[in-house]
Amino acid sequence: MRIALDAMGTDRAPMPEVTGAIQSLSHLDSDIEVVLIGDEEIVRTELERHGQCPDRLHVHHAPEQVTAADPAASVIRKKPSSSMVVGLRMQQAGEVDAFVSAGSTGAIMATSLFTLRRLPGIDRPAVGTPLPSLKDPFLLIDSGANVDCKPEHLVQFAHLGSIYAQHTMGRPQPKVSLLNVGEEPGKGGELVADTYDLLLDEPGLCFVGNVEGGGLLRGECDVVVCDGFVGNVLLKFYEGVAASILSPLGKERDDDEETGGLSDVLRILDHADTGGAPLLGVGGVSIICHGKSPPRAIRNAIAVAARAVSSDMVGHSARNISGSGAWLEEMK
Amino acid sequence: MRIALDAMGTDRAPMPEVTGAIQSLSHLDSDIEVVLIGDEEIVRTELERHGQCPDRLHVHHAPEQVTAADPAASVIRKKPSSSMVVGLRMQQAGEVDAFVSAGSTGAIMATSLFTLRRLPGIDRPAVGTPLPSLKDPFLLIDSGANVDCKPEHLVQFAHLGSIYAQHTMGRPQPKVSLLNVGEEPGKGGELVADTYDLLLDEPGLCFVGNVEGGGLLRGECDVVVCDGFVGNVLLKFYEGVAASILSPLGKERDDDEETGGLSDVLRILDHADTGGAPLLGVGGVSIICHGKSPPRAIRNAIAVAARAVSSDMVGHSARNISGSGAWLEEMK
Repeated sequence: MRIALDAMGTDRAPMPEVTGAIQSLSHLDSDIEVVLIGDEEIVRTELERHGQCPDRLHVHHAPEQVTAADPAASVIRKKPSSSMVVGLRMQQAGEVDAFVSAGSTGAIMATSLFTLRRLPGIDRPAVGTPLPSLKDPFLLIDSGANVDCKPEHLVQFAHLGSIYAQHTMGRPQPKVSLLNVGEEPGKGGELVADTYDLLLDEPGLCFVGNVEGGGLLRGECDVVVCDGFVGNVLLKFYEGVAASILSPLGKERDDDEETGGLSDVLRILDHADTGGAPLLGVGGVSIICHGKSPPRAIRNAIAVAARAVSSDMVGHSARNISGSGAWLEEMK
Repeated sequence: MRIALDAMGTDRAPMPEVTGAIQSLSHLDSDIEVVLIGDEEIVRTELERHGQCPDRLHVHHAPEQVTAADPAASVIRKKPSSSMVVGLRMQQAGEVDAFVSAGSTGAIMATSLFTLRRLPGIDRPAVGTPLPSLKDPFLLIDSGANVDCKPEHLVQFAHLGSIYAQHTMGRPQPKVSLLNVGEEPGKGGELVADTYDLLLDEPGLCFVGNVEGGGLLRGECDVVVCDGFVGNVLLKFYEGVAASILSPLGKERDDDEETGGLSDVLRILDHADTGGAPLLGVGGVSIICHGKSPPRAIRNAIAVAARAVSSDMVGHSARNISGSGAWLEEMK
């Protein structure tokens, strides 16, 4: 298995990427290789700081870099030699099995959609972000890809999230909840009320009902479904709370410090441990990381990508949603 | 000035209400009286625990109590002798100037709407919840009254919030933001994109643009406008984070402990200090408190009610929104 890592994505690239990649190799199966994509000179200079380059770590040259100023939809045309486009094109060509990037979320989504394409039966790929809770992490989907949704889109998110939770997060029968303003059926506006009714009758899902904002951190479900507007506001608010609290407390862990340093209570504010956020519903593995990711978060995202590949997440999604994996076989 | 306080609203009623009311009198102007509404025997028993009943504290008998099981819209008909209906009827009759309750939010909204009526020009009254930030508190409006909104409703929320912030929160020229998934114009779904355009051209508002979820706690605006679905999810999530963090840290302040006990960092998770949430857009003062309010939160909500009355918040709202206070004068 080969995992492409955009070496130029984080705010402090390529330090967190290179460090995270090196760390990840000692945690991953020995048949997994990581390909750092970026300006070779810059990446090799950073690698030298770490001494010898591990055998299973490769560098693939890509001279351009996507910035926040690049309009997301035009990156594929205007920056064809960027680490992001090169990495995703390599997956499209079958040269790597997964792609991980901490670059602009919008650009990763748009470029992934263009290169990996939508799975049949999926109208809107969605971002699933794993968030810590008082119990196990849960997947918030959609956390930002689609701001205007219809009930059938939310049902697709439920399937995508459930398959991901089962195969990649290791939940045998994922409990799926709908984010709402009350727990009772019939709560919420038109979108969620109609979605609730659809989810109740939907086969292949373990739908456990509505969850309120206050119930999320209790961790009683594995997948929380919402439209990308609410999900994005919530996710960024969560990150804002975390930054406001952890940063002044000196609890931001930029380095490779292990979790023992942070109390269990504050752990729920720190999602570097839960790994990257997959773009679900495309014909490949594309993992999105926060632009401020420390090496630890990159390492976790690589592990997430490896699990997604080895569990054949995309195959399961294609078979479950379109009822057949034929399309995927054809595409290969 | 007379402020009616529902003595039976909190989960531990009437203890927090009675304690908060007694404490509030020493902080309020000497011409302000508080009327505890509830089962007289229960309220007087609690009052006895505090020794002498202060001069400016009165008890008004109301034998019934609204519970979470009561459908919000039918409380006015089915529980006419409840502390909630009696208190709001007293304001409707001009016997008190404001009403404060920690009872069921839905029931307070429905009963307030029925008794105090909508201000002319307002289609949808909204709940404004003051939330702490790293600077001053900001008002989140709508935090739960309206789950399906149109752009013109959000513009009304902006006006109601701005007037409240100016006259009751003491912000001379309140900065109004629109909650969105990005800061740039044109971001977000149809509702917020259309609202953005309307707010840009709206006279009488200091609209400063979009704010993301991650920017809320930075406290750079006074009023944050959103639909009641997003607002409610966000508010409850915030409360959930606060409970998850403060409770295990032993930082929940049930009693009358002063703010010095809590570090500045954790202060942003504790909104008992910022007082109750006004239902804005009705022809009176109706302040909603959390069901778990400690005495300190009740005391602050009474202070908020007093400021709303003394600043003539309702009059300012009526004049600003309908362009004339004639309707309000007529109603008196």
